Amino acid sequence: MKVWKDYQEQHKDRFLNELLELLRIPSISARSEHKDDMIRCAEAVKQRLLEAGADTVTIYPTEGHPVVYGEKIIDPSKPTVLVYGHYDVQPADPLELWNSGPFEPVIKDGKIFARGSCDDKGQFYMHVKALETMTKTNTLPGNVKFIIEGEEEVGSPNLATFVKANKELLKADVILISDTSMLSMDTPSIDIGVRGLSYIEVEVTGPNRDLHSGVYGGAVANPITMLAKMIASCHDENNHITIPGFYDDVIESTPAEREKMAQAPFNEEEYKADLGVQHLWGEKGYTTNERTGIRPTLEVNGIWGGYTGEGAKTVLPSKAFAKISCRLIPNQSSV
Amino acid sequence: MKVWKDYQEQHKDRFLNELLELLRIPSISARSEHKDDMIRCAEAVKQRLLEAGADTVTIYPTEGHPVVYGEKIIDPSKPTVLVYGHYDVQPADPLELWNSGPFEPVIKDGKIFARGSCDDKGQFYMHVKALETMTKTNTLPGNVKFIIEGEEEVGSPNLATFVKANKELLKADVILISDTSMLSMDTPSIDIGVRGLSYIEVEVTGPNRDLHSGVYGGAVANPITMLAKMIASCHDENNHITIPGFYDDVIESTPAEREKMAQAPFNEEEYKADLGVQHLWGEKGYTTNERTGIRPTLEVNGIWGGYTGEGAKTVLPSKAFAKISCRLIPNQSSV
Repeated sequence: MKVWKDYQEQHKDRFLNELLELLRIPSISARSEHKDDMIRCAEAVKQRLLEAGADTVTIYPTEGHPVVYGEKIIDPSKPTVLVYGHYDVQPADPLELWNSGPFEPVIKDGKIFARGSCDDKGQFYMHVKALETMTKTNTLPGNVKFIIEGEEEVGSPNLATFVKANKELLKADVILISDTSMLSMDTPSIDIGVRGLSYIEVEVTGPNRDLHSGVYGGAVANPITMLAKMIASCHDENNHITIPGFYDDVIESTPAEREKMAQAPFNEEEYKADLGVQHLWGEKGYTTNERTGIRPTLEVNGIWGGYTGEGAKTVLPSKAFAKISCRLIPNQSSV
Repeated sequence: MKVWKDYQEQHKDRFLNELLELLRIPSISARSEHKDDMIRCAEAVKQRLLEAGADTVTIYPTEGHPVVYGEKIIDPSKPTVLVYGHYDVQPADPLELWNSGPFEPVIKDGKIFARGSCDDKGQFYMHVKALETMTKTNTLPGNVKFIIEGEEEVGSPNLATFVKANKELLKADVILISDTSMLSMDTPSIDIGVRGLSYIEVEVTGPNRDLHSGVYGGAVANPITMLAKMIASCHDENNHITIPGFYDDVIESTPAEREKMAQAPFNEEEYKADLGVQHLWGEKGYTTNERTGIRPTLEVNGIWGGYTGEGAKTVLPSKAFAKISCRLIPNQSSV
């Protein structure tokens, strides 16, 4: 609509500056030293929502970082959209891989480079500005609610409690989440479902203490070797997951759905070039988009054990650890 | 000999106090903040050697920590024993596992608990006191040389250079190294050979950056999974090492040698109880003593990759690493 375009054109610089200001707040939810930054960021989100025309905005404390809730109700009989977003970001390390400071936004080739610019400050801010545009131009067609949380990057440990305790407050006809990805810059996309997650930490214990590999090596099972054997056995030669019963409850996508997916634009050469890999890997019998979209997966997210410092230490460690997660699809349960 | 026993009985308390003093010096070669302690420890070793009757003692600087060299030559035509030892110790962490301070020696049940008490300050000090006993009682039957280095725990990076540059100085008929272990407290042992070591660090690189396992998982090879498969494949179902050619040059021990080894005292139940394991593991067809003594082994000494911090992060890492070492037996070469 032209009236929107005009308003946005007129306020473009301010919109941008406000977003940059938001990006400068190091709202890293995982690190307790950023607790004050988290509160500062929640306050900034509240302020922007009020300026955008929200009737009320409240910062709800949780056992972790606060949730910002705001709403603009023009007519309770009209449809209500609930916008979800999160104002927290991931830790920025390793810092040496950044070309500019993670909290010193830089605009290059029309893109903003900063921690959180596309996860998720950029996206939810777009919705805040959409609210502003519609309220200031008197074109808001329904009710809008915002829930902007501060713990998405650490697994939203307190969100379920908040949601359960505030069912009435959050009631809506549609929930809009812009914390997903696009197929490509040329192909705007709407995700209508995402896979679930099961995350476990594995601890393998061998001898009751770290041993010298010259004295005990070859005579006692090495926890790292055993963990490696466990991980190696999780995929068969076709990269199917071997965990007994893993696929039992899986609802297979229909041929029609798979056909629809096959129509989505995908350029394998570009995909490989972007990732810097020569070959793709995955479950036999499925395309890349299917592997990342409609099939369950198992990935090792972290592994550690023994001596990991500089130089050599001939330790046969007492323990080895891994973090392993599965993406789950309809009907699969993590329990 | 009674004269030795008498001398040692008479000076026992002083011997012990001198050793405790040596153990109080935190001569951790791996940590640069202990550089001064290393020099202090080298000076103490020099002082003790002179008091024990050495003719000359010199502290030789190296590119790392200094080497202490001392000698007592009574007659160049008589045999010469070269005693090797090291005055450096391993880092003492994790400190919470110590019942008393690593550099505050405690005597309990006739044993000294301190970092370095049995690796290697206790042992080389015994030889220093043997020299003292023999010189003071006029019973030294030959020449004695001491080389006490300060970098054993970090792989002796500068020892080869020193040895090559001082061939004449170090010339000896016998080399005595007391930096090995005993079969048990009831079975004093002399090691007449040790296996060699080949130590490598493996880096597995996958995508050119850390990826989100929800976006790319299942479609790109995960370096941790690939590293696990590599490690898992290094031993077959009989725990033989599968690396092509690994056993090609191995000189097998003779039946007579193996028979001799079988006579060494070994209690499997005690061994397992000491390590807190229910089962032993190792190369099929060999006993535990053979596995740790005369057979080559391959052990993973460390592994790391991806997210290893607290909580969950769904990273599919760009890289994974392992430190792997092999113990090599006669005729095997690391190159």
